[in-house]
Amino acid sequence: MTRQELIQQIRQKQSFLCVGLDTDIKKVPQHLLAEEDPLFAFNKAIIDATAPYCVAYKPNLAFYEAHGVKGLVAFEKTIEYLHREHPEHFIIADAKRGDIGNTSKMYARTFFDLYGIDALTVAPYMGEDSVTPFMGEGQWVILLALTSNKGSLDFQLTEDKDGERLFEKVIRKSQEWGTTENMMYVVGATRGEMFKDIRKVAPDHFLLVPGVGAQGGSLEEVCRYGMTKDCGLLVNSSRAIIYASDGEDFAQAAAREAQKVQEQMKRLLND
Amino acid sequence: MTRQELIQQIRQKQSFLCVGLDTDIKKVPQHLLAEEDPLFAFNKAIIDATAPYCVAYKPNLAFYEAHGVKGLVAFEKTIEYLHREHPEHFIIADAKRGDIGNTSKMYARTFFDLYGIDALTVAPYMGEDSVTPFMGEGQWVILLALTSNKGSLDFQLTEDKDGERLFEKVIRKSQEWGTTENMMYVVGATRGEMFKDIRKVAPDHFLLVPGVGAQGGSLEEVCRYGMTKDCGLLVNSSRAIIYASDGEDFAQAAAREAQKVQEQMKRLLND
Repeated sequence: MTRQELIQQIRQKQSFLCVGLDTDIKKVPQHLLAEEDPLFAFNKAIIDATAPYCVAYKPNLAFYEAHGVKGLVAFEKTIEYLHREHPEHFIIADAKRGDIGNTSKMYARTFFDLYGIDALTVAPYMGEDSVTPFMGEGQWVILLALTSNKGSLDFQLTEDKDGERLFEKVIRKSQEWGTTENMMYVVGATRGEMFKDIRKVAPDHFLLVPGVGAQGGSLEEVCRYGMTKDCGLLVNSSRAIIYASDGEDFAQAAAREAQKVQEQMKRLLND
Repeated sequence: MTRQELIQQIRQKQSFLCVGLDTDIKKVPQHLLAEEDPLFAFNKAIIDATAPYCVAYKPNLAFYEAHGVKGLVAFEKTIEYLHREHPEHFIIADAKRGDIGNTSKMYARTFFDLYGIDALTVAPYMGEDSVTPFMGEGQWVILLALTSNKGSLDFQLTEDKDGERLFEKVIRKSQEWGTTENMMYVVGATRGEMFKDIRKVAPDHFLLVPGVGAQGGSLEEVCRYGMTKDCGLLVNSSRAIIYASDGEDFAQAAAREAQKVQEQMKRLLND
């Protein structure tokens, strides 16, 4: 999906919500466990219920890989289902890949050619040749910049001799490799005020923002400092939406939560 | 596998060779393509031929994931085969994982509980909670420190205000999280002289060293600056061994190459 198509989806739906499919078999409602493929059955119901309120889905590979071949099948079925039934949604594989050039090329082949997803989260530590193989026409790298977890303090905020912090260097340097058409950055919602600094180095790039909801970030604050004229944000929520209820009404509960966020987003888009 | 068991294997075999199973279907000998599972057939033959000369195997996940479910099956069969036929070998999943705590825990469950491997390569960018879930009794994190690719120059050598380079900070800081019994570092062989600096911050840790062979690193130089009294090195070679021949003699050719390296290692261990 191109940047223009994504912006159009956001305007049309008045939403910049990304629903994270961190589907944990331990949290899937009891009555689905009798299904042949409970992970896929859960995802399918969640997707159908939340599709009107979001513009993107983000399956987290860890949750599928944990089940070996069965998990990978559930992942593949989820992607196929999205392509077939909801082709207007942007698909992000949250896989945090990144390796030497020839290996990154292999991963790119997997996610873009084999699965046809739109974007992949990538770790920047190994530099240019580990990142560029993932970029293409309508194929996006979402590079880790400033993450939402406690460990983000360990290295990402390290200042170099000129006072540039590592996450700022990652954002600045990577702009030599990609453009606003094929690169986004992960910036955790738990650091609202930091969006001001981020927008100094990346005024136009889309940002993928985890950490709203279960992790405690504030949507208002993210928008105050991070929103651009094109919106420029995809805000992810996983647990707060997909596990809103663990009963038979889990999909309706997820829809209600997604709709609540969408209504808030609509207000923020029009402020 | 514990550190003591690994050291014992190295002494017994007079080898610290790790064979990288970067099994590319485009490079698998023609006659194997008729097999039901050419990736596994290739790995099985390579493993049986090289097992006497190496102490570790390192399948690179990218090459298996690229084939979807079929690739994952080949990976699983390879791991099972190693457990069954060559249980004395150390198994490294080269996956470069690393995510927020709850997601890293999922990956850890996959690689250690589901597959029973010994070690996983992990990217350090997201810090402590992304790394510690992979450590356990005889379960190793192999943390990226100074990699062998060109992109390693982009961020890993950045000096902070006190002159500490990022890779040095990664090594120093991560020693607050793990020990020499559950943590190693990736250090590319392409930077022989840098091993001196690495040994200042990690005098006793094992180092996983890619980049000998196809990427141009020198084994002598790595050993001159990097070897410890316990050896302290696992030197990986992938392409130079597993693709030594693309004919029907591929396994014998791989054995010959592995044996050559092992003989060189034996000399270096006894110098």
